Amino acid sequence: MGFLKLHILFLIAFLFAGSCTTKEQQNLPYQSEDIMVRIAEIEIDSEYLDEYKKILQEEAEASLRLEEGVIAIFPMFQKENPASIRILEIYQNRQAYETHLQTPHFLHYKTNTLHMVKSLNLIEMEAMDHASMTHIFEKMTR
Amino acid sequence: MGFLKLHILFLIAFLFAGSCTTKEQQNLPYQSEDIMVRIAEIEIDSEYLDEYKKILQEEAEASLRLEEGVIAIFPMFQKENPASIRILEIYQNRQAYETHLQTPHFLHYKTNTLHMVKSLNLIEMEAMDHASMTHIFEKMTR
Repeated sequence: MGFLKLHILFLIAFLFAGSCTTKEQQNLPYQSEDIMVRIAEIEIDSEYLDEYKKILQEEAEASLRLEEGVIAIFPMFQKENPASIRILEIYQNRQAYETHLQTPHFLHYKTNTLHMVKSLNLIEMEAMDHASMTHIFEKMTR
Repeated sequence: MGFLKLHILFLIAFLFAGSCTTKEQQNLPYQSEDIMVRIAEIEIDSEYLDEYKKILQEEAEASLRLEEGVIAIFPMFQKENPASIRILEIYQNRQAYETHLQTPHFLHYKTNTLHMVKSLNLIEMEAMDHASMTHIFEKMTR
């Protein structure tokens, strides 16, 4: 009977450890191998630059606020050439990205900026170290 | 005398407001106009790729840990071409960057990877919206 109790104890410990790991993975999506990191390289017709930036910023803000699976969208432009836009995009996984493409705010951005975009290059990236991703941006948020 | 008191009161209020602003700026370096954002585009000789990644990761970790002025260093590589490295670098200001260049960990990285680097392109970027930078990476750190 003592042997059986020990077995049950191990089973409970095992299940508990399993549930902890799952919870941790849910809380730390950026450490998952599923995470999708991308750099979008976009050249804009200078004529529309201010208008484009406004629409992009609204879209980025709404995506972060409304979509749990959108981890980060960081729009930048080149100092030497402000019409060269670069966006660092981080999605929880491919499904989160596919969902993002169907949202009203993304579709609004896409349809309203299409004529402003001279070229678009989407480059799939891989973070060099998934484990450290939580620390990398800590100073940004404090 | 009442007029003088009022003047002193205004002066105190002015100085207090000034000190608050300074404190806020110190706490939120990423919102400052001085912030330096850069994308480093680096092509590595594939022969040395694993070795290069190890040295870069050690350098990035040490920079973030030891240098207050290094806000973020995010090393990535292209999925389609793992020898194409991209590093998003964020420094508090140009002085913080100049200091970074003199640190033992940066000099170790620079001297030990020089023969592995086929090309290096440093692109000065500007965040599209400084005010929102604090929210952009919030989900990464929770």
